[in-house]
Amino acid sequence: MIERILVANRGEIAVRIIRACKEMGIESVAVYSEADKESLHVQLADEAYCIGPASSKDSYLNKTNIMSVAKLTNCDAIHPGYGFLAENADFAEMCEECNVIFIGPSAESISKMGTKDVARETMKDAGVPIVPGSEGIIADVEEGKKVAKEIGYPVIIKATAGGGGKGIRVAKDEEELVKGIRITQNEAETAFGNPGVYLEKYIENFRHVEIQIMADGHGNAVHLGERDCSVQRRLQKLIEETPSPAIDEKTRADMGQAAVRAAQAVDYIGAGTVEFIYDLEDNTYYFMEMNTRIQVEHPVTEMVTGIDLIKEMIRVSSGEVLSVKQEDIQFEGWSIECRINAEDPYKNFMPSAGRIEMYLPPGGFGVRVDSAAYSGWMIPPYYDSMIAKLITHGATRQEAIDKMKRALDEFMIEGIHSTIPFHQRMMNHSVFVSGDFNTKFLENYKVMEDDGE
Amino acid sequence: MIERILVANRGEIAVRIIRACKEMGIESVAVYSEADKESLHVQLADEAYCIGPASSKDSYLNKTNIMSVAKLTNCDAIHPGYGFLAENADFAEMCEECNVIFIGPSAESISKMGTKDVARETMKDAGVPIVPGSEGIIADVEEGKKVAKEIGYPVIIKATAGGGGKGIRVAKDEEELVKGIRITQNEAETAFGNPGVYLEKYIENFRHVEIQIMADGHGNAVHLGERDCSVQRRLQKLIEETPSPAIDEKTRADMGQAAVRAAQAVDYIGAGTVEFIYDLEDNTYYFMEMNTRIQVEHPVTEMVTGIDLIKEMIRVSSGEVLSVKQEDIQFEGWSIECRINAEDPYKNFMPSAGRIEMYLPPGGFGVRVDSAAYSGWMIPPYYDSMIAKLITHGATRQEAIDKMKRALDEFMIEGIHSTIPFHQRMMNHSVFVSGDFNTKFLENYKVMEDDGE
Repeated sequence: MIERILVANRGEIAVRIIRACKEMGIESVAVYSEADKESLHVQLADEAYCIGPASSKDSYLNKTNIMSVAKLTNCDAIHPGYGFLAENADFAEMCEECNVIFIGPSAESISKMGTKDVARETMKDAGVPIVPGSEGIIADVEEGKKVAKEIGYPVIIKATAGGGGKGIRVAKDEEELVKGIRITQNEAETAFGNPGVYLEKYIENFRHVEIQIMADGHGNAVHLGERDCSVQRRLQKLIEETPSPAIDEKTRADMGQAAVRAAQAVDYIGAGTVEFIYDLEDNTYYFMEMNTRIQVEHPVTEMVTGIDLIKEMIRVSSGEVLSVKQEDIQFEGWSIECRINAEDPYKNFMPSAGRIEMYLPPGGFGVRVDSAAYSGWMIPPYYDSMIAKLITHGATRQEAIDKMKRALDEFMIEGIHSTIPFHQRMMNHSVFVSGDFNTKFLENYKVMEDDGE
Repeated sequence: MIERILVANRGEIAVRIIRACKEMGIESVAVYSEADKESLHVQLADEAYCIGPASSKDSYLNKTNIMSVAKLTNCDAIHPGYGFLAENADFAEMCEECNVIFIGPSAESISKMGTKDVARETMKDAGVPIVPGSEGIIADVEEGKKVAKEIGYPVIIKATAGGGGKGIRVAKDEEELVKGIRITQNEAETAFGNPGVYLEKYIENFRHVEIQIMADGHGNAVHLGERDCSVQRRLQKLIEETPSPAIDEKTRADMGQAAVRAAQAVDYIGAGTVEFIYDLEDNTYYFMEMNTRIQVEHPVTEMVTGIDLIKEMIRVSSGEVLSVKQEDIQFEGWSIECRINAEDPYKNFMPSAGRIEMYLPPGGFGVRVDSAAYSGWMIPPYYDSMIAKLITHGATRQEAIDKMKRALDEFMIEGIHSTIPFHQRMMNHSVFVSGDFNTKFLENYKVMEDDGE
């Protein structure tokens, strides 16, 4: 069993991993940038080491420094969390070479899923539905035109090395397509060092539905139900929930099985998420991408299944067999997560770094807070703006919403602006409450303006 | 349905009730003493009114003032919480006369269970096992001697009007008995205005196991499993858990049914707890008393059943039918509660009032905090010392303990002393971890001394 884990991350996910370590009797080693020396993850870990200046590339992305700490402190494993090095195949390989367990899938699994056109082909072969589009990377603009004519406009141009909303462009007609291919290729070359792009039919009216999977190194893989992450702003998820209000039992089971096939097709180990486009026009679903790591929104799955995903990741990376079989996994009630960001929702979600003068998270039955914030904490301006995840669990969707409302009402964060007022409006928004919406919710409804202060 | 509730309490239970109101869309009216004007329950309620000076008898026990606020603010119900007026039959009657719903059982049910010898006889008639003892109040010392000889020493002398550890005395022989009866009668006359005492066999080696029941006004009653509250200090519970490590499935079912019979015998409505002595010598159980209110330790039951006891109380008091049938109630995992008191465990649990300079409750998966504390709060010296309830839920007892350990470790309360160090020692104490102990745990093991600082 793993005995000592280096947590190669910061903020709430570092705290989350340290908590799991403590509960499992595993020692935890935190790393931090110079900007994070007062951070909660530094205080909670058994040991903590500075790995560089504030800039991510010099600290949380600094593979060599992180590996040096791991070796010097005798860590037998590294948990990368999400973001930073979590989906970095080179780092996973470096871990392997240095004889440190990377708590996640193999470098090869990461690579396959990280290269979008390879993932697409792999999924197709595994019988996972993919969006109609080109067969792999298009050779040139002419091929692009031909494919687009076949699948019909609008189409989406995607950089094969992109992901998470980057390197994507929609084309409504041939003129936009020609221009779009060139721009995307150039951008992708600059950003990812790989100009390859491919085409897909652009589906406009859809929900983002993703399946959590978990696999061990002994050939077992299960899915833990779906998460619906359709409330997004500029492709950033803001609210997630499980189950999805949009899909039925049969679709849930089908998507779950497809996600397990996806994982097995790349010999996956650990926690992963297969993201799907759920087309509301014809109630079909298509593979979008697989995130080969733990996700921000994993707690809603934990709330309805009772399964601790971080502990399970650690166990399977230790070589253990999955602790659950598919037929043992039960789903109880409904869970919603609101990402509380240090942003001013009244000013177009402008970042609002600074000192939190007073911080009092809500408590009580069915309320969970995952956060690294505390009274007096100075939020550094260098990293992402999420300061807390507020998760509720109720018997029904309405009860989860009602709990969220009261929890948001009592959440005290003073000294900075937060997105709490945005979430309060969402929880009272009739369309959100109805459950009947697509990923364009925030384009279609001016949540902060309609009933503004 | 009830639309507006006056919460006739303070501290965490007032916050707990206000939370349930908010989640149900019910307006909440707080009341507070002059010492509590900065309290969290005052801040969280929709409205708040001062009802008198710090002293409980002038404020939280001031029936007239509380009822005046209820009537003036158009409350249709009063939730008494625990302590204060929660088991005051006169107040329940006053509510009835003033046409305000008392969220709890009828004055008659409270009276029957509050008068210990009546409760004992009622339970006997209902087929609930009672400790061998006198038939009702003993007429005089001579009858006492006779009964004690029959049931055998040691015996326990109990004031019929007592309860919660008050008006109780053990006698090891006839000499102690004679003296004890006189002292207890005198004390009871002074404290409760009722000198009646009765005798019971004194059971030394037992666990405190209680059953949560819930009943509606339509003849339905269910039990929600047991809570084991054997870790006590001077009859004050410190740690509670469910299920009990001491009883088996059959006993659990038997005790549950006995508790339901107990409730039905007094036409009970709402949430109640039937407390049992679980005799470890012969694995039998006896009725101890029934608490006709919500209890401090109710959250552990909520964690394993998923049923919100406060909401259910409000619903049945509104006239609704119980939302669950016995066969629907499922028990998942294990839950433990530690009462965090403002006391110094290194100084014999001396109260430690004052200002909390920094307060950061733990969070994450399987951790619940019910509290009214916050950074900067001045703890008034007038009331009980409990400042937070820390509750964990895990798949197994060991997981609940492991979660408690890590949650205690990260719980920050600065500026005052708290019982966190005591609980940390308990969670690491091999006897507590084994689950094999009786109510004399803290007499038998010097938890704070054995491995002191």
